[in-house]
Amino acid sequence: MASGQLSRAEALACSDCLHACHVMLYSDTQRQLFGKIPIRHIILMQMRFDGLLGFPGGLVNPSEETLEAGLTRELSEELGVPLPISVEDHVDSRHAPPSSPSSCRSPSSRLITHFYVKKMEEEQIREVERAAASTATDHGHEVLGMVRVPLYAMKRGGGLGSFLSHSFIGNARSQLIDSLLRLNLVTHEELHEALTHSLKRHSHTAGDLKAALALP
Amino acid sequence: MASGQLSRAEALACSDCLHACHVMLYSDTQRQLFGKIPIRHIILMQMRFDGLLGFPGGLVNPSEETLEAGLTRELSEELGVPLPISVEDHVDSRHAPPSSPSSCRSPSSRLITHFYVKKMEEEQIREVERAAASTATDHGHEVLGMVRVPLYAMKRGGGLGSFLSHSFIGNARSQLIDSLLRLNLVTHEELHEALTHSLKRHSHTAGDLKAALALP
Repeated sequence: MASGQLSRAEALACSDCLHACHVMLYSDTQRQLFGKIPIRHIILMQMRFDGLLGFPGGLVNPSEETLEAGLTRELSEELGVPLPISVEDHVDSRHAPPSSPSSCRSPSSRLITHFYVKKMEEEQIREVERAAASTATDHGHEVLGMVRVPLYAMKRGGGLGSFLSHSFIGNARSQLIDSLLRLNLVTHEELHEALTHSLKRHSHTAGDLKAALALP
Repeated sequence: MASGQLSRAEALACSDCLHACHVMLYSDTQRQLFGKIPIRHIILMQMRFDGLLGFPGGLVNPSEETLEAGLTRELSEELGVPLPISVEDHVDSRHAPPSSPSSCRSPSSRLITHFYVKKMEEEQIREVERAAASTATDHGHEVLGMVRVPLYAMKRGGGLGSFLSHSFIGNARSQLIDSLLRLNLVTHEELHEALTHSLKRHSHTAGDLKAALALP
């Protein structure tokens, strides 16, 4: 078990912990970008109210409901469709990293994140996107928009490489990366190339931000 | 006129330049996040096919159509609704920065970006979001999802500060920042605080990416 991971039972035994449950919804697709770049898979993430990227889900109180019932409830608010999650969809449970970049809290945070993965049909993914932007009660509040994760690599590193250079909440980037490898959605070589580009793109942004701060 | 800016006429006089037109669509709103944080304005951006954040729009060929007709055509593909843009909505034209972080091209790129701003009613913005996720032909191809820009500041820098730390295409981050100030959507003090947090959040991400690259 990787560093920071807990079994589901160990996690639930922590009575003074906070529990957050999130799910990666994904499908296969035969579509191609610009008629030539295979898109391969559709993975849904979201822009959260706090301006960070993350997976759909939220806080659950295990003394009131099961983790999966709580996650299902959160999803119906954020995505606007019933989407039952079961214990078979559970992937892992981990301590969350410190929530703030400037925080000095212990790495063993009181927040435990439970991660789930659910494979769907492409048409179901499209239905989730439509409902999330129309009937979902959290739209424009807790959720600022759903986005798909590009898995391909374009010239100059566009695609997965650029996407991974964004800012993510808690464990979300590592949950995404781990899932891409575990489910064989990208190869180790593709991921390594993407991350190498991410670091380049990322250092480019530092210059932009410093220049913006220096403006009158 | 700021560095890199051109008048619309100067820009159009460059016969061997590429021209890209983008628009910031926004509205006022009375809604509050969690019933207490004023959202104030809704600004639409999008996750692009290349994994970067940007404004809706795209390339236009001025020898075939006006800039505004071309932008209106791009918007109907990306947003799925007719949204006529006129020359009165034009804000500025600039040379784009080098397109790749590792590029060594001249800062006076052959790509000129023309930027427009259009204020709408909140219900029109919601209609754009619904159509973009359902009927727009570019959905899932050139556009991976529409997102709203959070303008508020939460505890620990969440909100605009976190949002500005993401990776943006070309001039998009500076177009956003300039518009926030010019339209008085945020104050100079709020922007300075947000950018200060952006840099902290951004350096946090560098550590994450290096750790991910070091994994087996």
